[in-house]
Amino acid sequence: MPSGPAPNPSTALLTDKYELTMIRAALADGTADRPCVFEVFARRLPAGRRYGVVAGTGRLVERLADFRFTDAEIDVVADALDQRTVDWLRNYRFTGQIDGYPEGELYFPGSPVLSIRGGFAECVVLETLVLSILNHDCAIASAAARMTAVAGGRPIIEMGSRRTHEEAAVAAARASYLTGFASTSNVEATRRHGVPSAGTSAHAFTLLHTGPDGPDEPAAFRSQVATLGVGTTLLVDTYDITQGVINAVEAAGPELGGVRIDSGDLGVLARQVRAQLDGLGARSTKIVVSGDLDEFAIAALRAEPVDVYGVGTRLVTGSGAPTAGMVYKLVEVDGIPVAKRSAHKESLPGAKRAVRLHRRSGTAVEEVLFPAAGPAPAPEPGLTSRELLCPLVRDGEPVPGLPTLAASRAHHSAAMVSLPWEGLALSEGDPAIPVRVVPPGA
Amino acid sequence: MPSGPAPNPSTALLTDKYELTMIRAALADGTADRPCVFEVFARRLPAGRRYGVVAGTGRLVERLADFRFTDAEIDVVADALDQRTVDWLRNYRFTGQIDGYPEGELYFPGSPVLSIRGGFAECVVLETLVLSILNHDCAIASAAARMTAVAGGRPIIEMGSRRTHEEAAVAAARASYLTGFASTSNVEATRRHGVPSAGTSAHAFTLLHTGPDGPDEPAAFRSQVATLGVGTTLLVDTYDITQGVINAVEAAGPELGGVRIDSGDLGVLARQVRAQLDGLGARSTKIVVSGDLDEFAIAALRAEPVDVYGVGTRLVTGSGAPTAGMVYKLVEVDGIPVAKRSAHKESLPGAKRAVRLHRRSGTAVEEVLFPAAGPAPAPEPGLTSRELLCPLVRDGEPVPGLPTLAASRAHHSAAMVSLPWEGLALSEGDPAIPVRVVPPGA
Repeated sequence: MPSGPAPNPSTALLTDKYELTMIRAALADGTADRPCVFEVFARRLPAGRRYGVVAGTGRLVERLADFRFTDAEIDVVADALDQRTVDWLRNYRFTGQIDGYPEGELYFPGSPVLSIRGGFAECVVLETLVLSILNHDCAIASAAARMTAVAGGRPIIEMGSRRTHEEAAVAAARASYLTGFASTSNVEATRRHGVPSAGTSAHAFTLLHTGPDGPDEPAAFRSQVATLGVGTTLLVDTYDITQGVINAVEAAGPELGGVRIDSGDLGVLARQVRAQLDGLGARSTKIVVSGDLDEFAIAALRAEPVDVYGVGTRLVTGSGAPTAGMVYKLVEVDGIPVAKRSAHKESLPGAKRAVRLHRRSGTAVEEVLFPAAGPAPAPEPGLTSRELLCPLVRDGEPVPGLPTLAASRAHHSAAMVSLPWEGLALSEGDPAIPVRVVPPGA
Repeated sequence: MPSGPAPNPSTALLTDKYELTMIRAALADGTADRPCVFEVFARRLPAGRRYGVVAGTGRLVERLADFRFTDAEIDVVADALDQRTVDWLRNYRFTGQIDGYPEGELYFPGSPVLSIRGGFAECVVLETLVLSILNHDCAIASAAARMTAVAGGRPIIEMGSRRTHEEAAVAAARASYLTGFASTSNVEATRRHGVPSAGTSAHAFTLLHTGPDGPDEPAAFRSQVATLGVGTTLLVDTYDITQGVINAVEAAGPELGGVRIDSGDLGVLARQVRAQLDGLGARSTKIVVSGDLDEFAIAALRAEPVDVYGVGTRLVTGSGAPTAGMVYKLVEVDGIPVAKRSAHKESLPGAKRAVRLHRRSGTAVEEVLFPAAGPAPAPEPGLTSRELLCPLVRDGEPVPGLPTLAASRAHHSAAMVSLPWEGLALSEGDPAIPVRVVPPGA
């Protein structure tokens, strides 16, 4: 039985087939190695959103290392390809450059959150993997950031694993921790990404303690406390919440760590339970609430005596925006800016860089996109300028010293503080700061 | 370099932490081995839906075999557990029974799509993995089925990989193929599940053929045709669609396989392009349309000369319902029916079986849930009764001869034919058939 992690499987087939047939045609006509720049950006933010959060680049850099076509991968795709393409895939290593907004950074419509430079074929083959990771992780982080912001320092436990694909669950736990969630129920996210783990109790455990005479909630609570200590969190809403709280404090004493309420009108119940706990002397017992919470429900509970939020479904489904709408677009070929002209799908031609301008107070006022070949525009007096694209990959290899998840979490926290006050509103409105584009040759 | 697939990594940590701490408490108080029945069901269908589609049980049975706690998994969780629990996990093998609705079958509110029987601990530890797989795959399949139904025999290519988590993409391709999609762009889904692969071309390939004199769409088309043959599909909307169609037919001749339109008013464009193609003698050239299509957009294109649909974002996000709302509930302990009484989260106590009643014409009229220990209710005269729960796992091992994906696809197709006509409507309404519950002791 293996005692270490299994070798990472190749990520090379997490790809759309047309990437491979395009490479075949490009190899045949001599364009495969033309120097290209691709950029990843979102044309717009999801409805109602004022900012997005960059997430997933750390995962991308890791999975890029596993983007290899071994015999096992070649076997699957060979029948659509010629020998030259098969040989090219077999020798594939990305040798180009990738720059990106730091994980945890905010983005706005058009922000070039990732810039990929190299030969056409070596870059285009990464499109699907890059977008899958960024579209998922940015969607989750962007929803999570709003929840963290409105929770106002109260911890949030991520507990949505069961509502999303089993692997997406692990990435969702990581993305939500990045934006300030306290912990996750997902054990694999603890292993893979070091996210702190948390857990309370389940209705099944209480129901398990049913005998011929009927339910026995006190027995369930006594058992949990005996094994997990008085610091545990007891789930009090399986039968009757008021009786559940009585049973809980009887089982654990007034030092009980917490009670969890997972159903009903959470605001009303939190007040009732707080009063009841205080009356029983359990003044330090925390109240954990869960049950279809999203940023709006969390906001509605701000004035209630809630200590911890548990968020599941709405987090892992991006709270109404389950994908970030990122696209991966060729913007420059051999130094020539290119762009398609399809209706509603325009993109800005030419490789770009981006700076964000801040007041001395730290407040962000504007993001400026400008031609990568040119100088950064000088900020107006009183403003400072911060370059947003940072090196991630050089000559195909990860840049040493990329930020840890903890460092990215701190970066995100600082970025949120820099948002103008209106940008934090949950209501619909314009992006929190405007994005200005300096056209080529300006 | 490995030439075969890597060993399957353990799925055991794709789990909520509280499953493990509950097991610890249950081992300590002697309840861990109490015979239990858990059921998976959705309390309601997503808004506007009249049926759901069961998907993911095939994946579940596979991933269950990898649910093992080796040293690598134990290391992650040991600090929350005692030695007895660690030893139990180390020896963990599911030894119980799982029955389920066949993949591709329809479900309705309360349908017990999966029934898991065994000791409490061995069953409860599977909760998160079971729900992650079913909630994702059922959500995708339920959206896909509506798209297939309204496409009326025109093939649909699944091309949403880039809009969802990279592993969810593979599962989404499988779930959509189950419901009748023709193919997928996701290469890994071809390897892992045998879903037929498809691909067209990308804007990047056309843009790549830009020189100092500007864009050269004819060069891109000639290259693609030279390499991939006249049967290929050319993407004609990078610059100007009318000129694109001219360029396409010039490059390939009237035998051109297809043209793809990925933007704009697809209905209007399809008519224009069809007329233009016919005028150029390319009467057999197919028109592929894509661009944020969902079941409603497909319906709106029914009367237009469209040959193939490409569906992406809306498929992989469940077309507004990205998770199926399935729950995993303890319904019976030691033969005693149990249920929590939380507001709005009621469940029906007791292990259940289910039959669907059909007219002689095949049309489904009702689903009946009844106590598993009792006899199936006799159908009224003129109706036939079909048992819905089928054995999937016996004594922890997959039942031999479980349906292939192709067989499940055929099962789904037959199930859709059995729906009453109103049940196929896209508009909101009641579930397509009612679900009747025969209470215990009735």
